[in-house]
Amino acid sequence: MSLEGVIDLFLAYQRTAAVRTGIELDLFTAIGEGVDTAGGLAVRCQAEERGVRILCDYLTVVGLLRKQGDRYALAPDAAAFLDRRSPAYVGSVVISAAGDTNLQAFGRLTAAVRRGGTALDADGTLAPEHPVWVEFARAMVPGGAFMGPLLARQLDVQACGHMKVLDVAAGHGLYGIAVATQNPAAEVVALDWPNVLAVACEHAEAAGVAGRYRLLPGSALTVELGSGYDLVLLVHFLQDLDRGTCERLLRKVHAALAPGGRAVALGFIPNDDRVSPPAHAAFALAMLATTPGGDAYTIGELDRMFRAAGFAGTELHDLAPTTERVLIARRSP
Amino acid sequence: MSLEGVIDLFLAYQRTAAVRTGIELDLFTAIGEGVDTAGGLAVRCQAEERGVRILCDYLTVVGLLRKQGDRYALAPDAAAFLDRRSPAYVGSVVISAAGDTNLQAFGRLTAAVRRGGTALDADGTLAPEHPVWVEFARAMVPGGAFMGPLLARQLDVQACGHMKVLDVAAGHGLYGIAVATQNPAAEVVALDWPNVLAVACEHAEAAGVAGRYRLLPGSALTVELGSGYDLVLLVHFLQDLDRGTCERLLRKVHAALAPGGRAVALGFIPNDDRVSPPAHAAFALAMLATTPGGDAYTIGELDRMFRAAGFAGTELHDLAPTTERVLIARRSP
Repeated sequence: MSLEGVIDLFLAYQRTAAVRTGIELDLFTAIGEGVDTAGGLAVRCQAEERGVRILCDYLTVVGLLRKQGDRYALAPDAAAFLDRRSPAYVGSVVISAAGDTNLQAFGRLTAAVRRGGTALDADGTLAPEHPVWVEFARAMVPGGAFMGPLLARQLDVQACGHMKVLDVAAGHGLYGIAVATQNPAAEVVALDWPNVLAVACEHAEAAGVAGRYRLLPGSALTVELGSGYDLVLLVHFLQDLDRGTCERLLRKVHAALAPGGRAVALGFIPNDDRVSPPAHAAFALAMLATTPGGDAYTIGELDRMFRAAGFAGTELHDLAPTTERVLIARRSP
Repeated sequence: MSLEGVIDLFLAYQRTAAVRTGIELDLFTAIGEGVDTAGGLAVRCQAEERGVRILCDYLTVVGLLRKQGDRYALAPDAAAFLDRRSPAYVGSVVISAAGDTNLQAFGRLTAAVRRGGTALDADGTLAPEHPVWVEFARAMVPGGAFMGPLLARQLDVQACGHMKVLDVAAGHGLYGIAVATQNPAAEVVALDWPNVLAVACEHAEAAGVAGRYRLLPGSALTVELGSGYDLVLLVHFLQDLDRGTCERLLRKVHAALAPGGRAVALGFIPNDDRVSPPAHAAFALAMLATTPGGDAYTIGELDRMFRAAGFAGTELHDLAPTTERVLIARRSP
């Protein structure tokens, strides 16, 4: 680093704002389609030419666009990930990752560090039926559509025959739906707030698995889970909860599993040093900013929690080719 | 870049929040003084240990801290620039660069691009006596303390003998004060809002030049500038104004200069391609977000504006060893 590097950190928030604005205006798609001047883009994106010109120049500096004379083109990563027509489009993710709730939470980060938990009102984003989770479910579709099938394959669900699956905090539902898609004998129960389940339900219908997809509305912490599950999915969920709540939930999950059944946690799982790998370790700050007691629990912490809940131990896997990690715990047969 | 690079842009705002919180808690100074555990830092910074631990781990991932076991130390750049005891401390800059007004302005960036100017209320930060400029004057002291003397030397003011200097939008006043310090025969007039001039006045007294320092309260656009100046300083100011206002102001400046006198603009001055050098070009977005019509005017644009105001032309200089640029225009003798 250097003084420039430090100043760059001071101004890093401007990069997020610029890329979010580019996505909100669908600017990258427009450029991908060949509209390549500030004037043309202003018409297409319903904005002022002056605003578009300054935004495009900034996005060029950041490396998402290329500029030749007065004409702009997409850099390769913008073409792959930010043009809505690309199969790898992830633009919607920014609406959640840098959405108003998160920006507000990070705007109060100093207060969150002082109190050791979110400085948002009440329970932060864990307040019952907080609308952020519907937005989140829609925004995270690209991740689920890509990683759901990877996870189902990693768990080899197609070799499992008849199986009963519980998808806890299902969100968009795409992890449980991938299991149902790869295993035509799988039945999936999706648990989440009713407003979020509406999103999962749409996706189950679109995937043609609605007949084997049941909704369980409510909070994972208080609802009756049922029993006899061969697989319980805990995707990006334990991180939101404090340690004691995690252990209580894991005890409920253990009791709901059939003998030999698997509980699977996918998410940000740092090493025990808490500072590696970078993306996993960095995620803890978002949990501090937005939840009362959540954390990016380490491999060792999760292993101890699962053991305390009755599991014999855990196995850690990478979800290649992503940088995600998967923890698998089995109820003894 | 890569998918990780794109996601990194989506989350860049979290880095700014983390470093701002570290500075607000004076965490870097505490670590520099040898308080090196989350528990010790929690006591020292009046925060919860859990919050401090998560923040320190994040700052380690970002590269500002080093971690060994459970102990933290400053990385070299944090020691140089973020420990309040360092002569090169610039921590206060983040309070302005990522202050609430700027965060709010960038939170409305999409609306700003649509309308071609700030989406803040009224005139954005250009509203008369906007309190952000007092905060700005105090926050930018490290920059002025370092660059003021560099600029005064570059202008060789000590060889000028008796001279009359006008410091337009003086802010902390440190550019004009540096001229008065290097040339004991210089008289300086500082022009700014009254609430901001209070800050400049403090600095003039501290530098021992108050006897040759006169205050001219008001707006540079409407106040009577006076005449016979040998030097008019326009530091980080033209960028805030729209093109027409710049030209009107430069005409006033030209008329206020003595024959042979110099007008000097220091600030972010991109090349005519508008996308280089990076820090200069990127600055235009902040002007779009916070002002109705400001911009990072290019070398060519500024030259045309100065010519239109009556100057014969401009000369561009680097303010080595910084990355700042200085434009000098002379009234014909």
